[in-house]
Amino acid sequence: MNYLTYLPVFSKLTKSQQDILTRSAFIRQFSKNDILHNGSQDCTGLILVLCGQLRAFTISDDGREITMYRLFERDICLFSASCIMNSIQFDITITAEKDTEVLVIPPEIYKSIMEVSAPLANYTNEVMASRFSDVMWLIDQIMWKSFDKRLAGFLLNEANIEGTDTLKITHEAIGNHLGNPREVVTRMLKYFVNEKLISLSRGTIKIIDKNGLEKIINR
Amino acid sequence: MNYLTYLPVFSKLTKSQQDILTRSAFIRQFSKNDILHNGSQDCTGLILVLCGQLRAFTISDDGREITMYRLFERDICLFSASCIMNSIQFDITITAEKDTEVLVIPPEIYKSIMEVSAPLANYTNEVMASRFSDVMWLIDQIMWKSFDKRLAGFLLNEANIEGTDTLKITHEAIGNHLGNPREVVTRMLKYFVNEKLISLSRGTIKIIDKNGLEKIINR
Repeated sequence: MNYLTYLPVFSKLTKSQQDILTRSAFIRQFSKNDILHNGSQDCTGLILVLCGQLRAFTISDDGREITMYRLFERDICLFSASCIMNSIQFDITITAEKDTEVLVIPPEIYKSIMEVSAPLANYTNEVMASRFSDVMWLIDQIMWKSFDKRLAGFLLNEANIEGTDTLKITHEAIGNHLGNPREVVTRMLKYFVNEKLISLSRGTIKIIDKNGLEKIINR
Repeated sequence: MNYLTYLPVFSKLTKSQQDILTRSAFIRQFSKNDILHNGSQDCTGLILVLCGQLRAFTISDDGREITMYRLFERDICLFSASCIMNSIQFDITITAEKDTEVLVIPPEIYKSIMEVSAPLANYTNEVMASRFSDVMWLIDQIMWKSFDKRLAGFLLNEANIEGTDTLKITHEAIGNHLGNPREVVTRMLKYFVNEKLISLSRGTIKIIDKNGLEKIINR
């Protein structure tokens, strides 16, 4: 099985480009909470998620976090290979949120093909535009959406990703996703409990009124 | 004078691609405050600034604004041609901050060349990565920097752009740049007056202590 065929652009490359990629790409396994890529210190390479789940986030000078986007099966991460482009002047950290298997394409290999291949350069453009859209959505959220709406949306999205209404996640982890202190998360969760939207127990948040959370988002 | 030579990639295109671009690109003039491009309703084309100054910003559902980036002479705007890429799923509005002359490359022409030209596709990648870096800087600012630091930075940047310490700008316009209500801007400006960093008169902000503003940014 050549996992590179997961890339929609693979079939548009020349035979020799396909061979170079196939020879140089390699599989790596990560356990939950492992760090795959750590800001500008690394140029890990292009990462194609084979199974599992990754989280891409930025960290403030004093260690606070906010999630930029998540990556799921068949998603590709470009910014783990930020050295392929001069103009990428920011750092992203990537961790495994579940046990994860990825295909890594070494950055210098990808770059050398991208420089001569219009299909691969255009594919890279589309991947970057897609992440750009995620980040523009994020700006819209943090600028204009009140925290109750953001938290309600986060809980519904988590339930959707995990396929369960019983979420095993700490208040601190939610704060790291949304860029807010733990206390702010705890206070709003307690408000949701009072409104009978969720129930809380140690390390677990149970959604009991999905419609109610959706109403908060749209009010 | 072929202004397309302002594009560093122009010399790497084939003669016939250069000719197509040269024949199809056209110059347009805008007056201060004109709207060049209005979100997803338009696909104006690639815009190369010949002289003047542009502002790219987003607008919330209820009409609040925040500046994404500014464009100066020889800068290029990609998102005014968002129809050239499927994955650009966000809207940007662009206005002239000064009387401005631009070269417009029709989107369908740019796209047709980008699809076959690795140099042009890679150049487009670099432009997008550069804007992406601007937007990541913005997230860092709005998430982690207190408003006094953002406002001090804005005033110093404006003084730098305009080449004067006497800024003709309303409190509302500053609010639209930074994504804050006018009242919040006015309150912080008054605090700066009390600290003897600036003085205010109708429609004008005069910077009287640059070092003091820089100290606020770094404290």
